[in-house]
Amino acid sequence: MPGHEFFTTLTVAQALHGFRPTRRTAAETVALADALHRVPAEAVTATTALPGFARATVDGFAVRAADTYGVSDGQPGYLDVNGTVAMGRAPTVAVVPGTAVAVPTGGALPQGADAVVMVEHTQEAMPGTIEVVHPVAPGDGMVRADEDAAPGALLAPSGRPLRPHDLGLLAAAGVTGVSVWARPVVGILSTGDEVVPPGTATLLPGQVRDATAFALAALVTEHGGTPQVRGIVPDDAPALDVALREAVATCDLVVVSAGSSVGARDETASVVSGLGAPGIFCHGLAIRPGKPTLLAECGGVPLIGLPGHPLSALVVFRLVGLPVLHRLGGCVAPPPEPRVRARLSRQVASAAGRLDVVQVRLSSGASVDAEPILGHSALLSLLAGADGYVMVPEAATGLAAGTEVMVTLYR
Amino acid sequence: MPGHEFFTTLTVAQALHGFRPTRRTAAETVALADALHRVPAEAVTATTALPGFARATVDGFAVRAADTYGVSDGQPGYLDVNGTVAMGRAPTVAVVPGTAVAVPTGGALPQGADAVVMVEHTQEAMPGTIEVVHPVAPGDGMVRADEDAAPGALLAPSGRPLRPHDLGLLAAAGVTGVSVWARPVVGILSTGDEVVPPGTATLLPGQVRDATAFALAALVTEHGGTPQVRGIVPDDAPALDVALREAVATCDLVVVSAGSSVGARDETASVVSGLGAPGIFCHGLAIRPGKPTLLAECGGVPLIGLPGHPLSALVVFRLVGLPVLHRLGGCVAPPPEPRVRARLSRQVASAAGRLDVVQVRLSSGASVDAEPILGHSALLSLLAGADGYVMVPEAATGLAAGTEVMVTLYR
Repeated sequence: MPGHEFFTTLTVAQALHGFRPTRRTAAETVALADALHRVPAEAVTATTALPGFARATVDGFAVRAADTYGVSDGQPGYLDVNGTVAMGRAPTVAVVPGTAVAVPTGGALPQGADAVVMVEHTQEAMPGTIEVVHPVAPGDGMVRADEDAAPGALLAPSGRPLRPHDLGLLAAAGVTGVSVWARPVVGILSTGDEVVPPGTATLLPGQVRDATAFALAALVTEHGGTPQVRGIVPDDAPALDVALREAVATCDLVVVSAGSSVGARDETASVVSGLGAPGIFCHGLAIRPGKPTLLAECGGVPLIGLPGHPLSALVVFRLVGLPVLHRLGGCVAPPPEPRVRARLSRQVASAAGRLDVVQVRLSSGASVDAEPILGHSALLSLLAGADGYVMVPEAATGLAAGTEVMVTLYR
Repeated sequence: MPGHEFFTTLTVAQALHGFRPTRRTAAETVALADALHRVPAEAVTATTALPGFARATVDGFAVRAADTYGVSDGQPGYLDVNGTVAMGRAPTVAVVPGTAVAVPTGGALPQGADAVVMVEHTQEAMPGTIEVVHPVAPGDGMVRADEDAAPGALLAPSGRPLRPHDLGLLAAAGVTGVSVWARPVVGILSTGDEVVPPGTATLLPGQVRDATAFALAALVTEHGGTPQVRGIVPDDAPALDVALREAVATCDLVVVSAGSSVGARDETASVVSGLGAPGIFCHGLAIRPGKPTLLAECGGVPLIGLPGHPLSALVVFRLVGLPVLHRLGGCVAPPPEPRVRARLSRQVASAAGRLDVVQVRLSSGASVDAEPILGHSALLSLLAGADGYVMVPEAATGLAAGTEVMVTLYR
């Protein structure tokens, strides 16, 4: 039973600030239909005006606004109807003084028109002539040819994942492909003599199925990466060395769920330190659960050694791994996490200088209550029963029952 | 230019309460690796205990707790070390009174042990014997064989989409496949003589590219459905009738972006009313933008006729279509939407009796400000510039600048 823990322990904030690998994935072009949540590598701008022609926004009559000045219910104006604009067609007649052209919502304005009178503000005076009973100003009842986008206008910024309506605007602008950052490939390696594949039907005494790899893979997928589950390596330094070298050579980020014992962790650290410069950034985070976390960069590839307990591993990967994943994939504006204010239903203990991540279950009555789910970080079921988590900051030595907290919700 | 609008206008709350088609998709089994965000059709429970054996949660020595009672730094207890538990193996020795067995974190407790003393609370007295300087109680330094899950315990409830850590717990329990509701197939039909496919390189005057279909498809994907973009139908009743009959026959939900003119909308309504019982539920929602919305159920398949403006269509589909999509797919606990409190930077006008959905841009200073993005609902660019939206409830006649509002954020 060897072992002393030797940590260079940083706070999570220090780690997030200092551990910022510069690696980026390559840009690639994807079809617009496949671009949901992808991150544009460069801003997408309009090449032509949108909608491209002045368009009616009401059903009515295209007119010269000046022809309607001063009209009212008592003193209607009279306009001759020159024709009708068909949807999707170029107008075949123009509006000249004293005339109007019927136009449906979305129809193109004829030449000479600068406004559209709503059909509700007109009536037929005699066949071919309408009464206008409300004046319009230029621009009423229409949008300009470049009102949705002028040539060169920003349609989607770089670095922000594309949202459903972004795809709509790009489709409107005729953009059929988008240059996006490739999804970061995240190699996920499990270690431990006790760990067996999830598909193992019957466990031998002392064995556990690999829970962390599946959960990490799902987190990676959810946040725009491509998980590459690379299997289970026994607690054996040469085997781990080979597996990590292969992973670092082909992945954008490597995540190792280290063995849970001190010995296994020491072994992982010593293998990682042999993998290449600049090497280990920190070995230990001031967080609970999750202290035995290793952050390293090997030949330009970030590597995260996660704690052995699945719960701890997932807490740390959310807080420290996802920001790295987003950076690798060029995402400078990650989607917001759902959060809700709630009152702690009972006290939570903590230690100063350490960030505590507490799983909570919400219940709604007069206010939203957050009930801490206590239990050992070896228990993955704590997460399954949780609606979200509360962070007890480093400066606090616990939170009293009734404290208003911000709960980050799982989705 | 025909037309009178004839609406049976409901509030959004009335529509959500009353328009609840009973249709459900079929259950299907998917591999665990493909089950992220899928909705279990039945609760998943543990068939055996987890972790399945009593497990050390610290590096140390498995002992009988009674052997440590009363020990202290000044008066240590002495235990003979009988052997060592190897990770992933069944213990080969038992703990008998006066003895201890070395065990790593995660290792199986030997028979006879009921606690684990941390290695830090021991020292080697002589080869084969340790001093214990802190007493332990039964259960210290370990988890029970069924502490993560007892046989029959709930691992994942039905009706709630599976989260990354749910997959972890299911993997730990040896679940390799999950019975989930099939993704609802959502047929998306665009109408309008002016609408051309997004890939159209050059528009003729009066034409617009189909923005709504791509954006709706992405929203459907984002919320667990399978979009089926079924193309563009001209403003022609027989063609629309054929297209809608085909869609209703093969989809779980049909969404039509109706033409924007009153005439086109009337035509859609009359075609829909001929499609089958129970027919049209409402024709008009008290919402802006989005009033000309049609809700119907044709032969058990819900059908939503959306307004012609892409912006209006997306607002309505978010508020009214997504709840229907979730119901169809058995999702009773949809993931929470991200929201944030903010102060309106300027006044927003509204009318009593109508829900107004106002796009906003956030800026953060001393507080978070929400700046309303004003403009016509014919402009899709309003959405591209928005971080989220604010709802002005039916009872309000506008919101004053400085009002604290809840912003639902896009992601």
